[in-house]
Amino acid sequence: MRKLEDLQLLIANSVDKLRYPDYPAELYEPISYILSLGGKRMRPALLLMACDLFGGDVEEALSPALAIEVFHNFTLMHDDIMDKAPIRRGKTTVHEKWNANVAILSGDVMLIEGYKLMMQVRENILRQVLDIFNDTAVGVCEGQQLDMTFESTNNIAIKEYINMIRLKTAVVLGGALKIGALIGKADIKDAELLCEFGEQIGIAFQLQDDILDVYGNPEKFGKQIGGDILSNKKTYLLIKALELAQGDYADELNKWLSISDFGSEKKVAAVTEIYNQVNVRAYAENEMQLYADKAFKALEKINLPEANKQYLRDFADGLLVREY
Amino acid sequence: MRKLEDLQLLIANSVDKLRYPDYPAELYEPISYILSLGGKRMRPALLLMACDLFGGDVEEALSPALAIEVFHNFTLMHDDIMDKAPIRRGKTTVHEKWNANVAILSGDVMLIEGYKLMMQVRENILRQVLDIFNDTAVGVCEGQQLDMTFESTNNIAIKEYINMIRLKTAVVLGGALKIGALIGKADIKDAELLCEFGEQIGIAFQLQDDILDVYGNPEKFGKQIGGDILSNKKTYLLIKALELAQGDYADELNKWLSISDFGSEKKVAAVTEIYNQVNVRAYAENEMQLYADKAFKALEKINLPEANKQYLRDFADGLLVREY
Repeated sequence: MRKLEDLQLLIANSVDKLRYPDYPAELYEPISYILSLGGKRMRPALLLMACDLFGGDVEEALSPALAIEVFHNFTLMHDDIMDKAPIRRGKTTVHEKWNANVAILSGDVMLIEGYKLMMQVRENILRQVLDIFNDTAVGVCEGQQLDMTFESTNNIAIKEYINMIRLKTAVVLGGALKIGALIGKADIKDAELLCEFGEQIGIAFQLQDDILDVYGNPEKFGKQIGGDILSNKKTYLLIKALELAQGDYADELNKWLSISDFGSEKKVAAVTEIYNQVNVRAYAENEMQLYADKAFKALEKINLPEANKQYLRDFADGLLVREY
Repeated sequence: MRKLEDLQLLIANSVDKLRYPDYPAELYEPISYILSLGGKRMRPALLLMACDLFGGDVEEALSPALAIEVFHNFTLMHDDIMDKAPIRRGKTTVHEKWNANVAILSGDVMLIEGYKLMMQVRENILRQVLDIFNDTAVGVCEGQQLDMTFESTNNIAIKEYINMIRLKTAVVLGGALKIGALIGKADIKDAELLCEFGEQIGIAFQLQDDILDVYGNPEKFGKQIGGDILSNKKTYLLIKALELAQGDYADELNKWLSISDFGSEKKVAAVTEIYNQVNVRAYAENEMQLYADKAFKALEKINLPEANKQYLRDFADGLLVREY
């Protein structure tokens, strides 16, 4: 099996080679720009990995893998408009560098370019692959819509939250793995199990991200600790804490959610203290483990040699045991 | 052959039957909303017409025809954001009724739903149909970008303008006809000729629209006469007049383009007078005829019975001889 880092590097190099027309410049320059900002290229690498695991030819999976990366960057370009984000990977976002109209239209073309790349598969799996891509793409849009809706919604149930992160983050991982598996000539049952593995790992990963925002090691997490707390982001921790907190803790938590004029450090410390008191971290870790277990359960059922399964287990462990 | 009006009615009824999920409501309600606003359903009807002309089963072409209509409405939803248009077909636009974020994301899903519908063709033409759809979709985005760029560009050449309207308006007509022809089992050469016919007729039609804005009969044109003049829209007439006008006429025209505080009637009358003086209407009608001729030339080469060709000629005549 090829190392994940090697596959990521192969993607990075292939992304660098993607070329778009010069005209109209305002339509195509933003595409090259956002693709040049880098990133871990994890989603397309997973597609290649799945193909490789089933003994397929990684080269055959390259265009569909690039499709996943182009699609992912389309969602980033449009999400950044919606979230009014000024910065993406340390650089100015497209709608800030150009304008929102350019970001809308370039994003639209990226989605189409994603389809063009995804179609570069052999004839007998074309329809199947595109069906998966369609479902994935719709899922991501649904997830983004729910994420936006939740910003102004109270009383979100944990179940709804999990469904949102599943759609927004996890279905692409599952979809990429499923498409890669089919290109690698896996049978449909194994491709679906691998998809299930990816989706459940994706949910566990997102829950871990919620935990790390509060309890992570700032040097290793790479983001500001407490960022979610400061923006009142409805993470698993906040939703669960609102459910668990009673009496004074509930009042205190609601007070911090409602005031906008506060010292940052003070708010992070105070909310974290409430989280500690209601023991929300344990709930979150428990939930995360639940989804990791589901992933491993699906993995066991896949018809693959033990060494290949171990590769997937190691991958999942690497993803989920980021240092606290 | 089935009457065009019957095909339009079939589309209208089928659009009414399209159903989208209830959840998330903000993602799917705008789709049903914009599709319910009506319209002539000309593009999808052309797809059915092409299929019918080659003896194909119109029912088989219904989903791809709906794909064209859903795609067209996706472009309207996003264009309306970019153009800050408050009204579409007499009703509030999606970004006004909801907000821009909702219109971006619902539009994205519509594009994907377009692909899902377009994939409902028989196996042996799936790739070919999707290739045409991809090219069409990219073309429309390029056309919209050029249209926006031209708003703030001086010295647009007629050639560039024609290319813009070809991309923005005409390629969808050509693409719809080509896909319909393939579903109707036309051979690829005939499908391409019909595509050429549609594209050239589309350009002629758009040029006619430019002429009607100034010289149309207000009761029959259905839009405000001189609307393009009031908004300084770079139509064929304006671009050509800027090219033709010399001396005082040039100064006068540029004056009217630069002032924003004017009486509407006065501006329309003054600019129309300059158009008359430089005889721009004749140039425009000549150019329009040029593209109509190209369309009819392509039509003659199609391998179809004379009656079917006559049907297409009548269709083109109906489109191009709107009353002045």
